[in-house]
Amino acid sequence: MHEQRPLVLTPGDPAGIGPDLVAMLANTDSSLDNAVIAADRRIIEQRAEILGLDSNFADYSRWSTDSGTKILHINCPCSVHPGKAQSESADYVLNTIKQAVSGCLDGQFSALVTGPVNKETIHLGGFSFTGHTQYLAELTDAPRAVMLLTDENMRVALVTTHLPLKQVPDAVTSELIVEVTTILNRDLKNRFSIAAPRIAVCGLNPHAGEGGLLGNEERQEIQPAIEQLRQLGIEASGPYPADTIFVPSHARQFDAIVAMYHDQGLPVIKHAAFGEAVNVTLGLPIIRTSVDHGTAYALAGTGNANPDSMRSAISMAQTLVANCSHGASESE
Amino acid sequence: MHEQRPLVLTPGDPAGIGPDLVAMLANTDSSLDNAVIAADRRIIEQRAEILGLDSNFADYSRWSTDSGTKILHINCPCSVHPGKAQSESADYVLNTIKQAVSGCLDGQFSALVTGPVNKETIHLGGFSFTGHTQYLAELTDAPRAVMLLTDENMRVALVTTHLPLKQVPDAVTSELIVEVTTILNRDLKNRFSIAAPRIAVCGLNPHAGEGGLLGNEERQEIQPAIEQLRQLGIEASGPYPADTIFVPSHARQFDAIVAMYHDQGLPVIKHAAFGEAVNVTLGLPIIRTSVDHGTAYALAGTGNANPDSMRSAISMAQTLVANCSHGASESE
Repeated sequence: MHEQRPLVLTPGDPAGIGPDLVAMLANTDSSLDNAVIAADRRIIEQRAEILGLDSNFADYSRWSTDSGTKILHINCPCSVHPGKAQSESADYVLNTIKQAVSGCLDGQFSALVTGPVNKETIHLGGFSFTGHTQYLAELTDAPRAVMLLTDENMRVALVTTHLPLKQVPDAVTSELIVEVTTILNRDLKNRFSIAAPRIAVCGLNPHAGEGGLLGNEERQEIQPAIEQLRQLGIEASGPYPADTIFVPSHARQFDAIVAMYHDQGLPVIKHAAFGEAVNVTLGLPIIRTSVDHGTAYALAGTGNANPDSMRSAISMAQTLVANCSHGASESE
Repeated sequence: MHEQRPLVLTPGDPAGIGPDLVAMLANTDSSLDNAVIAADRRIIEQRAEILGLDSNFADYSRWSTDSGTKILHINCPCSVHPGKAQSESADYVLNTIKQAVSGCLDGQFSALVTGPVNKETIHLGGFSFTGHTQYLAELTDAPRAVMLLTDENMRVALVTTHLPLKQVPDAVTSELIVEVTTILNRDLKNRFSIAAPRIAVCGLNPHAGEGGLLGNEERQEIQPAIEQLRQLGIEASGPYPADTIFVPSHARQFDAIVAMYHDQGLPVIKHAAFGEAVNVTLGLPIIRTSVDHGTAYALAGTGNANPDSMRSAISMAQTLVANCSHGASESE
């Protein structure tokens, strides 16, 4: 029965394009055929109506065996206008995530796919929120969540994520690199079914420090981390200069590349994937993928939102669920 | 006659693959048909012999009108063994560059194409040398040289280059961004024949600082620089998040992208160009392009070196020379 559990999708900010994408996908292909939408039913129906789309979704019930897209109704206290950010919706947005996660943890749902939220809107609503990844780590008691961007050809994991560049060099410690790469290695095995992942670790500085001429973090933090990882039996190597490791002939020798910071790794993969890379959170006890775009308020309700990224995120979640079902151990 | 001036090529480190590439190109296509090699004749002939290639090069003379690859002989005081780095060759390597630049400045040569050197070998030879770009700025009295990487689809200029990451945030000042982008704009007009270059400027921090949540350099340095550039009549815009501006649908709306530092811009273009991007130095009174790889000592003398990057660098230099000859003003 494991394979047939639905995935759960949070459309994110109700004023953004999340509800549009849900309505569009439900009307165009089979992406959402075994999915539960955690949202206020009225928001989805209203958006579908604006777009001239069908919105005949059943209510989700844990014991129902019907197929088709279902809605796990969660009440939104304010009325929603496409494109109009409202801090009053912040509590609702966080509630959809909480209930979706809770359903993943208790085995109702096979995976979580998240739509775009707006950090500022949530802040204005009175909540501290640094992003989905950190929030999901807190909700699931995970000591560390790792951000992985992936397309068909490349996987890029980040040691640091949403940190001012000035704070990056001090944050890149040997301990953190070991922790992140260990999680990456484990999840590449368990979730991506890669028996012995080959992991390339980038340097922090240009040319990976060029033997100390351009910085010492490679010698002080990154090389010791790689040695420790190898002692743990992990096929990590490096530190490699970021501008050469991503050259396709080099990159394809590895199952994943560990970048030290956001703009070292993400521009390449988002370029290569034409903006359709899927964001996968590693290190959580649940499977979670995400769209790779923002709320795009200006497109909400217009019919011009592009559902490709959400389709890719759903498809990637299904692949990861299938990989886990086929015998990989989750308890490792 | 302007168009017919030869370009000059410095093979770089004599123990690296530079001499191999020269011998290979001279034997396989017309890349070097109107080129002068600034090197010790014996090094090129010896390498050609090892590779089983012809090396019947004429001596360069300023007033000769013969076609074909020629050699501007510069004496190397030590004997050279492929793959064996020798600090005794440092003075010779710098001499080849000096004489090549001198010939460009006095109008003998139309452009300079440089092969790979090894900074450490030159240091060990007793010279302070932080790379070709800076050295060429000194030799030509240029106040600022700008590094541009380019392939057929994308151009990426760097505000800072070979700097430890820790020093980058303080180095990214409004003044420097204005200076670099002004040079870029001028050379895109003069050398790339782009009438009104559209220039995208990246942020420094993830998500271009996300409105101050992830850093203030965008507000304090980058936005003021962009405003100043626009007042100067330059079509600069931004700051854009680096992980979205390089998505092809966005990148193609611009003639060049200004990255704040090495690993923000170069991994993308080197990935996209499959490692065959051409390095063009802007801001110099001469045209200069460069291979985009190192000395590759292990490949020297083996016949396994790949001349594609040198071929691209020569071809780009010829394009830039043709653009300048066709009426663009150099004196602007």
